Amino acid sequence: MTEPINTWIKQIKIAPPSLSDNTADAERFENSINNVLGTQFLDIDTCLLVKLPKLIHDNNFNLRCVFFKDHKKWYLAGITDNKTDTVAGLAVDLGTTTVVLRLLNLSTGKILAESSFANPQISVGPDILARIHFAEKENGLNTLTSLIVNGINNAVDNLCKSCNISHSDIYLVSVAGNTSMTHLLLGLNPYYLIREPYIPVINRPGCLSATEIGIKANESAKVFVFPNAGSYFGGDLIAGILYSGISRKENTSILVDVGTNAEVVLGNKNWLVACAGAAGPALEGGVTKMGMLAGPGVIDRISYDHTAQLFSIHTIGDLPPVGICGSGLIDLAAALFVSGMIDIRGKFIPSVCKTRLIDEDGFKRFVVIFAKDSAKGYDLTISQADLDSLVRSKAAMYTILETIASYVGVSLSELHTFYVAGTFGSLIDARSAITIGMLPDLAESTYKSIGNSSLEGASMILTDCSLMDEIDIIRSSITYVELNVNQDFMNRFSAAKFLPHTNLSLFPSVKF
Amino acid sequence: MTEPINTWIKQIKIAPPSLSDNTADAERFENSINNVLGTQFLDIDTCLLVKLPKLIHDNNFNLRCVFFKDHKKWYLAGITDNKTDTVAGLAVDLGTTTVVLRLLNLSTGKILAESSFANPQISVGPDILARIHFAEKENGLNTLTSLIVNGINNAVDNLCKSCNISHSDIYLVSVAGNTSMTHLLLGLNPYYLIREPYIPVINRPGCLSATEIGIKANESAKVFVFPNAGSYFGGDLIAGILYSGISRKENTSILVDVGTNAEVVLGNKNWLVACAGAAGPALEGGVTKMGMLAGPGVIDRISYDHTAQLFSIHTIGDLPPVGICGSGLIDLAAALFVSGMIDIRGKFIPSVCKTRLIDEDGFKRFVVIFAKDSAKGYDLTISQADLDSLVRSKAAMYTILETIASYVGVSLSELHTFYVAGTFGSLIDARSAITIGMLPDLAESTYKSIGNSSLEGASMILTDCSLMDEIDIIRSSITYVELNVNQDFMNRFSAAKFLPHTNLSLFPSVKF
Repeated sequence: MTEPINTWIKQIKIAPPSLSDNTADAERFENSINNVLGTQFLDIDTCLLVKLPKLIHDNNFNLRCVFFKDHKKWYLAGITDNKTDTVAGLAVDLGTTTVVLRLLNLSTGKILAESSFANPQISVGPDILARIHFAEKENGLNTLTSLIVNGINNAVDNLCKSCNISHSDIYLVSVAGNTSMTHLLLGLNPYYLIREPYIPVINRPGCLSATEIGIKANESAKVFVFPNAGSYFGGDLIAGILYSGISRKENTSILVDVGTNAEVVLGNKNWLVACAGAAGPALEGGVTKMGMLAGPGVIDRISYDHTAQLFSIHTIGDLPPVGICGSGLIDLAAALFVSGMIDIRGKFIPSVCKTRLIDEDGFKRFVVIFAKDSAKGYDLTISQADLDSLVRSKAAMYTILETIASYVGVSLSELHTFYVAGTFGSLIDARSAITIGMLPDLAESTYKSIGNSSLEGASMILTDCSLMDEIDIIRSSITYVELNVNQDFMNRFSAAKFLPHTNLSLFPSVKF
Repeated sequence: MTEPINTWIKQIKIAPPSLSDNTADAERFENSINNVLGTQFLDIDTCLLVKLPKLIHDNNFNLRCVFFKDHKKWYLAGITDNKTDTVAGLAVDLGTTTVVLRLLNLSTGKILAESSFANPQISVGPDILARIHFAEKENGLNTLTSLIVNGINNAVDNLCKSCNISHSDIYLVSVAGNTSMTHLLLGLNPYYLIREPYIPVINRPGCLSATEIGIKANESAKVFVFPNAGSYFGGDLIAGILYSGISRKENTSILVDVGTNAEVVLGNKNWLVACAGAAGPALEGGVTKMGMLAGPGVIDRISYDHTAQLFSIHTIGDLPPVGICGSGLIDLAAALFVSGMIDIRGKFIPSVCKTRLIDEDGFKRFVVIFAKDSAKGYDLTISQADLDSLVRSKAAMYTILETIASYVGVSLSELHTFYVAGTFGSLIDARSAITIGMLPDLAESTYKSIGNSSLEGASMILTDCSLMDEIDIIRSSITYVELNVNQDFMNRFSAAKFLPHTNLSLFPSVKF
């Protein structure tokens, strides 16, 4: 089998020994590896050395080896017995809420299987802060680490079964997660992550042994854990930058991972600036009574037909509506705005809303779906408070974007590409987001939804050994900007709390 | 406490973090270490990273660290909690027959305790060959590895108790052993060591973790295993060369580890040649009926008083004689020769031996100690066959020395210093050894007995971090010469089978 040029699998031919060259097996093997890889720093586990003489003789001095690399140091992750064996790699997107795994064939680069599961640490605390406090309890950190390691191992079990391979066929694992989750996976104390000056235990965990972490894989498998650029800029974002390619481009682009926490990277091949800020759960539909995660019957698209003066509503699976997800909510706000049902402050205008505006316990609620059309049997409504919350969230998001752009003296309108990452991000309709002034008024073609960029970045490095150095380059070129909630920020935030914005010249395409 | 300059213990001051430099603890620690050590390649166990944040804060950004090194790579072997704790190192001379351990205080360099024990693998086979064959059986290698690891751990237990320290106070371990014993300790298959072309699994095991090998020590302790220069030139000899200092001298010296197998290194600061050959167990008193290892009542010195025509006999502890050890046997042969009781072929001369030559079952035996003077109650005798065997052994030894010297065109008479290593070697009387032609006829001051040079070499590297590079220099400058038993060798051997030698001009100081 001929492997692609950038695979981590390399064929190593070893010079046979002789009476005139009785160099040991390990050193002849290392010399051959050094010739192929051009490295002086190579790490070989003793468990591989134990098997080496037999493998060398059984394979006629020609071994199929799997490598991994961190900085200048290479690691031998395994020697495969048989040329037809599947050599697999596991990419892990280690999320606070959801963990996504992907199994890849390392020689072809093809995806073998994928799965996701709710992070079992949720049983301890839904958010990172709760978990970090839990880690301070006796045995708390161990409990959290075991939960996530066991969770991954259970999922690996099922993934392996689904494609009929064994754990021992997994030689490489890459993990991209936020800094806290990475610490909790590795059993590193997260105490100082949330205390000024917010110091991680480690920035570059590098290549570790799967055995050491406790991940079920080949006994010599190596795990690359994406580095972080601080407590609030994790390996998931570095993987995302790698996948987006913004650090390889001449033009300046932006990458935004939209969620409860908006994580933003702006830059090009010469520089990268990054920041993160709370955009608020409203963006994910989290605070609305009718809000829910995307799923069957959930409203994910709403548009407004000016002529018919009707909302056109789409649900996932075209089922009767059960609720609304984040992208649906942004569409709804945009539709309400262009229909004139809410004003530029996001307040309902009773004279336009008419019968859709009802009174519930003294609070105004807007009926999105009347009871007769709802799968729930009751009206699906949103309140003025829900809308206010959404407006604050969209304002926060826009302010973060404006602040980071002004920090480097770039105008948002100059951006070459606007990458939107994250599951939620991939559902957002750019037009609606522009209409409410959450995202800047760029040509819709400027927006590129790139999905789970963290998982994609983690996958990329498993199948292309040339990318490893780029990770360090990305990490070291990031300037992390702490968003100080100072007067400038507050002024920008206040101006952004209007639909689309106080300064309408920033949103020329929005007509209302 | 101020540590000596070459100690492995270094005080590492870490820059405190701040909002403007939120580099992680691990990376700030590494940067500080790199400033002190000047290295780019540093290995820190995850188990130390786990403890790092608390240690940094508890010790006010100033950590007392223990390092170890292999080639260009440094290893963090531990961070000591308290400045007054004993930081210990363990030197191991891993012999086929006897294992010797020495516990050292790494900050003062002082010896804390020492002990030795019979290699428990003797229960499987007394010699290496038997053990290597045993290793081929199912679970054989595991059994051998467990035996030696458990043996070391039991001895470490007692050593620690004897000086009131704990296992966890041991941070560094250095192991010097022959190539086979090293393989058996590390669980590496010794199969090819004894099969042409005699290839070890590994030449440079380097620094390993004590946990991985199973040696009881601090959880982050590192074990340096001396490298070998082939199957028949082990780390014990490299440690011996390091201790002897021959590789640092302008003048050419020789180092001989005298035993069943004579191991010889000849050279100076520019080059080293080495060889090994069977000198025969006769030299260690192993084949003689009255032969035994040095111990109470054992004859270790014999001289002959020409005037009184009497043997002067010394026993260890001045007790009634029970037997004779190797050095006593060499003395005896020399005394018999100078007294004229044996001829130049080593054959008893009945007319001179007189009543000391008795007949036992048709074989001639020479009475060394008459029954009345013996602790055994019977005559202590040696046979003609014993003497013949000793002559063959001394001839083999001399031939090996001559062969290696002629290989590099050096005359034995030019040697600056003749180092004799090994427990047995330290007991040999150079004058006697010269008299029988076992060692070359050099001024007695040329001979230096250096005892257990393997243990001393292993100890040196624990207390002087500047010596580590020298080990690789020694290893790479060794040219190992296979002693081919060719016509040249056989001619030399035949000429050496006389007392002191066929060519008497080689031994001008020997009068008989």
